[in-house]
Amino acid sequence: MLIRKLKENDYQKGLNELLSQLTHSPKGTDENFKSQFKNLKENDLHLVIEIDQKIVAFGAIIIDYKFYREFKNIGHIEDIVVDVGYRGKGLSKLLVNNLIEHGEKQNCYKFILNCKEEYTNFYSKYGFENKNITMVKYCNN
Amino acid sequence: MLIRKLKENDYQKGLNELLSQLTHSPKGTDENFKSQFKNLKENDLHLVIEIDQKIVAFGAIIIDYKFYREFKNIGHIEDIVVDVGYRGKGLSKLLVNNLIEHGEKQNCYKFILNCKEEYTNFYSKYGFENKNITMVKYCNN
Repeated sequence: MLIRKLKENDYQKGLNELLSQLTHSPKGTDENFKSQFKNLKENDLHLVIEIDQKIVAFGAIIIDYKFYREFKNIGHIEDIVVDVGYRGKGLSKLLVNNLIEHGEKQNCYKFILNCKEEYTNFYSKYGFENKNITMVKYCNN
Repeated sequence: MLIRKLKENDYQKGLNELLSQLTHSPKGTDENFKSQFKNLKENDLHLVIEIDQKIVAFGAIIIDYKFYREFKNIGHIEDIVVDVGYRGKGLSKLLVNNLIEHGEKQNCYKFILNCKEEYTNFYSKYGFENKNITMVKYCNN
């Protein structure tokens, strides 16, 4: 088992099949993936867990630089997903802990995630508390 | 009235006093501000509204690059605040609309904001809907 940064040749290692377990994820091309990969920002972190050359878990942290609270930052924890065949083995905890450790090094004082009500118990085990409301607006893209 | 990108000499234009109306914001130095300003990412947008050389409103959008939904992105709307002396004049709507327009150009299909329950009516006027739970974890930083 290997926990590591997302790499630009990862799309063929089961990433799309994994993300399909999180949300609507029609298969794109390797070029689509590589083009988007180039947009990722230096201090953010997109982590994967690889087992037998297959990506079985994914999660990300986006660093949001703030100008208050002594210029400390907020980390947005995003898209935690573990393949259905590998759940219950602590992989999501490993992901979340590694993402938070990265955020602490990026001077974050706080971590935020948005989830459905049914997952609040799950994340409360990792020290997250219900705090606010997530509001969403869709556009025509 | 001018709506424009945050600039590196804005800390002396009332920014800290404005952000204090949003959250805990002890005054830092110009150097603190400029150092944090350098961390801002190219495709994100931090907008201010300036009236009579004073910053009276602030808001930001953080672009979160995704590998699903045909590689379209999510925009996190952050830190919308209007000075107490300038509320009720449509400035927050102007900010939110400009941030969303920027996000649409960055290929966002969805915009997310986290707020207290008391503000949900306010943001529903701008087309946002209650969707999920925001969970938060603090660390030692």
